[in-house]
Order: sequence, then C-alpha cells, then structure tokens
Amino acid sequence: MLGGATENLTPHRHRDRHRHRDRHRDRDRSFNYNPPMALARLGILISGTGSNMKSIVAACESGDVPAEVGVVISNRADAPGLEWAAQHGLATALLSHRDYPTREAHDSAVVDRLRRAEVDWVCLAGYMRLLSAVIVDAYPNRILNIHPALLPSFPGLHGQRQAWDYGVRVSGCTVHLVDLELDHGPIVIQRTVPVRPDDTEKTLSVRILEQEHIAYPEALRALLGGSWRLEGRRVVSV
Amino acid sequence: MLGGATENLTPHRHRDRHRHRDRHRDRDRSFNYNPPMALARLGILISGTGSNMKSIVAACESGDVPAEVGVVISNRADAPGLEWAAQHGLATALLSHRDYPTREAHDSAVVDRLRRAEVDWVCLAGYMRLLSAVIVDAYPNRILNIHPALLPSFPGLHGQRQAWDYGVRVSGCTVHLVDLELDHGPIVIQRTVPVRPDDTEKTLSVRILEQEHIAYPEALRALLGGSWRLEGRRVVSV
Repeated sequence: MLGGATENLTPHRHRDRHRHRDRHRDRDRSFNYNPPMALARLGILISGTGSNMKSIVAACESGDVPAEVGVVISNRADAPGLEWAAQHGLATALLSHRDYPTREAHDSAVVDRLRRAEVDWVCLAGYMRLLSAVIVDAYPNRILNIHPALLPSFPGLHGQRQAWDYGVRVSGCTVHLVDLELDHGPIVIQRTVPVRPDDTEKTLSVRILEQEHIAYPEALRALLGGSWRLEGRRVVSV
Repeated sequence: MLGGATENLTPHRHRDRHRHRDRHRDRDRSFNYNPPMALARLGILISGTGSNMKSIVAACESGDVPAEVGVVISNRADAPGLEWAAQHGLATALLSHRDYPTREAHDSAVVDRLRRAEVDWVCLAGYMRLLSAVIVDAYPNRILNIHPALLPSFPGLHGQRQAWDYGVRVSGCTVHLVDLELDHGPIVIQRTVPVRPDDTEKTLSVRILEQEHIAYPEALRALLGGSWRLEGRRVVSV
C-alpha cells in the first residue's frame, strides 16, 4: 500500500500526472477498479463544517488512506470547512451555485475545477446539492457520498430525524457510490448504531456522526487500496 | 416478573380467565400497556415450519417470556409446524384460506378461534397471509410480526434476497406491531447481521434466521414484561 508518504500530500506536488490521466480514460470504460501505483487524488465537496472532510484529510495524512487531497470546493461562501481547509494548506475553491444560471452550469464549473486539480475521486462531505449528470458522468463510479442512515432506509434530508420518528431500534450511516438517483448508488460501507430508549434526535445524530468519521476513511481504504468490481449494484472485491 | 411458572403453561389451564377478558376491553381504548398479573396468552399463526414458533414456545416454557401458548393456527394443512405443535401438546387448528370465500371470512374464522383460546397477543410466525382489518382491529397493537430485514428497508417477500441484491453491508430482522400496512407497524426489536464478502443469499438468510430466533422472544419479553406506550410510532417503555 502507498500510505504513509506524507511528503506527497500537499495539493501542488504529486508524481506522474500523466499516468493519472491515462488511468482516468481506462477506468471510464468499465466498472472494474485496479488500485493506482501513485496516490489517488481526491476532490472534496462541502457546504458547511466539513467534519467528514476533516476525517478524510486526517486519514490521508496518517497514511490510512492511500490518497491526497487535490482540492476542496464549497458552494457556500460561509462554509466554515472552506476556511479550515485553506488554513490547513489545502487548495480550495468557492463556486457558489448562485453565480450560475442552471444546475448544469454550476456543475460544469465544479467539474472544470476538479479536472484542473487532476482529481481521481470525488468525496461529497455534507455537500447540500443534488448532482446533475454533468458531474456524475464525468466521474462514473468515482464519486462517494455519506448518508446518516442505513440506506435504503431514510434517504433524503434529515436521515437521523426520519429514523428517530420512525422508531427504528438501529440506525447508522452509509458510504455509497453516487449515481443519478438521490442516496441510491452501490453501497461500500455501512456502520450501525443502536437507538437507545433515552435518545433524542440530537443524541442519536451525534452517535451516528462519530461512526461517519470512521466509515468514510474505511470506505476510501476499501475502494482505493484494492481491486474491486460491481456485480449488479454490489461492490465486490477481486 | 411471572417467568418460571411452568406449571401454568399448558393450554387448558390458566388462572383467572375473566380478568383476562377485562384487560382486553381496557387496552382497546388506548396505546398504553400495563403488564398483566397472570401469564399472557399467545396465539401463533403459521404457514410452514414455524421455526419462530418453536423459539417462542421454548421461551415460554423456560420462563424467559411471561406467557403461555393458547393456540397454534395454520392456514395450510401441510405446514410441518402444525404437526410439531400438536405433538408438543399445544392446542392447534387448521383453518385453510381455501375454505372461505373472502379474506375477511377467513380472518373472521381465525379471530373466532383466537377468541375461543382466550388469546391476548397474536404472533405471526411465517404466516404467509396479508391480514385484513378483521384481525388487526380485533387485536389492536397486540399482533406481532417478524420480518427478515431491517425495516423500513426491504418490506414484502424475500427480504433477505432483496437485501443481498441491493448490496447492503448490514441486514437483520425486525419484530414489529402489525397495522394494516404490510411490514409497517411500530418497531419493537431489531437485530443486525453483517453481510460478508463471501455471503450468498442463502448464507445470509441462515444468519438472519438465527437472530430471528433471539429477537422474537426478546420482543415478547419487552412488551409483556413491562409497561409501555406508543409515542407516534415509537414504542416507549414507561
């Protein structure tokens, strides 16, 4: 594995950019993934605090995940995570959706910025925008999202509240590949949490968030660290 | 608790039948449940092997669940569980749905038989029939079902196969109160199982079934052993 090479983790230095580009073209043709020889490059999309971004960055820095962060993009100027990323020495970009006439125009600008950063994988980390085909088709099966529920239960907004209202006895989080349907693509990792008798929506949300911060690096490790393929919608190691 | 009183567990002897009837009427008016002074009487509905029936019977006999089995009813003559129950000394009834012109007519016959057995609670244990309002209204919030998935994911037939096809990383089983929607009522217990990389639908089903046999007695213990109420659709101990 390629973990531990922390000297390669700054956004502006990494080896062999052209090999990265070739890998891109090859991968677009199938759902087979073979791990790269160099560190993978991540683009992280946020809209707020970016606590999942922070866990991903930490896992890259520690070598737990064989990747480096190419760029952090926010669609909101007031996202605290954007400031954190800049202070952390990461390349950042603010691309407000309000500056573009359509969802597709905004998504095109996001894709342009991701490509300029030579990103291999895109991580949605509290990115509160639906993705159009402009992004999904640019990174087929290379976009990850995390959802605060055990999908397919409770997709959409406020998965924690939905679970609490429904009265489930167990909930959790799901990291999945992104397709054009909301919270729908192939599942990579799920982690569970019990719903306790004295829970509120808030205490449950806190417990789920703790597991999210474990699950996202775990999913990246599983996907970037070995070969896998899709069988139907099942992610299968090969 | 009333567990351990094995001398009261045969179907034809139990104390204070009239008090049982009074409890029925009181409970119909609200969603508050207070545990009875005597053992609760269970009616178990099956269509096949009745492996969940067997785990319920064992838990009653050991005193883990403060209940006794009043009657086992099958809608199929060839259900192996019916023969097992009779050999086990339990009261049994065969009420084939084919002998009745409508679902409601069949359900009426089932309710009549349950009432004759002075049943307080109804446990569906692999009963492959949709319930009409005739049964649900006769035992409001006193019918339990077990489903081989983490509801609200994968309701309906073949929950295990649905989960496997969907590619979830965790599945399990759910014991819930029955309402008029399929696999929908308030959840009492959920138990999880991991979906392993080398699982097939079959190995996953076996692992879920093991948890079902723990979950059903656990749910009965929770509901019969203490006071609880419904808040919305959440089952809350009081």
